[in-house]
Amino acid sequence: MKEKEPFMKEAIRLSEEKMLAGFGGPFGAIVVRGEEIIARGYNNVLSSNDPTAHAEVDAIRKACQALDTYQLQDCELYTSCEPCPMCLGAIYWARLKKVYYGNTRQDAAAIGFDDNFIYDEITIPIDKRHIPMQQLLPQEAKTAFKAWQEKENKQNY
Amino acid sequence: MKEKEPFMKEAIRLSEEKMLAGFGGPFGAIVVRGEEIIARGYNNVLSSNDPTAHAEVDAIRKACQALDTYQLQDCELYTSCEPCPMCLGAIYWARLKKVYYGNTRQDAAAIGFDDNFIYDEITIPIDKRHIPMQQLLPQEAKTAFKAWQEKENKQNY
Repeated sequence: MKEKEPFMKEAIRLSEEKMLAGFGGPFGAIVVRGEEIIARGYNNVLSSNDPTAHAEVDAIRKACQALDTYQLQDCELYTSCEPCPMCLGAIYWARLKKVYYGNTRQDAAAIGFDDNFIYDEITIPIDKRHIPMQQLLPQEAKTAFKAWQEKENKQNY
Repeated sequence: MKEKEPFMKEAIRLSEEKMLAGFGGPFGAIVVRGEEIIARGYNNVLSSNDPTAHAEVDAIRKACQALDTYQLQDCELYTSCEPCPMCLGAIYWARLKKVYYGNTRQDAAAIGFDDNFIYDEITIPIDKRHIPMQQLLPQEAKTAFKAWQEKENKQNY
């Protein structure tokens, strides 16, 4: 694993540098293909007023722009902290090959971030969650799904 | 719930219109404060080459820009389909008040989307997941967390 360590060190370096510069929380991530760094991401929730601007999402979005694709099957992600559920979802949608992480979700909870709480919320039934969720107009909603199924020449993804 | 229905109908309308126009899958979402629509979002994964550009993420990002904040405590989200784990995470980070949804994750799976699969992946232990995850350099990673804790005048979020 020695050859992997410089990549993790770069993710950690970013996490501290960008946090100290006021962009957001102490989180950095990079997308790597082979031995090449494709994109560098960091938490910029505060500077961008964007709650989705976590390090992993930032790195994935930048890597997709750099490679002109919405899938990163040949790439690996190095992140200074275990991804939160939002970022883990993004990792699956981007179809990354492997994820290396430094801190854990429990480490993040210990310094005041909600990652672990959100993991708990996702696993419990909808009607037990802290943010109430309610189904509305399911029959009407299905019309768009039917239209998707019937669409010709569509790009499945 | 009658007064909620026009908002859901708008989310559904967006889901179909933008999908037919080729932006991405059949998903739409709006952020509402009181009786006012703050932002309209739709899946634009294909047109933006951005795997994170789901309807809910798109609507949340636009609403945060419109209101100049990274938190939406006074807002509700209407989405044409139950949020995937990425979007559910984004909803928690944005601290939305309530979520209304049309289709379910099972409906999404039935037309070929991975939402349900990703829910399953998130709930299983890290070492059982389809995308391998491995911890690396945890001691080094903690230095940035310590620096965050020691940072003066920081904005907790």
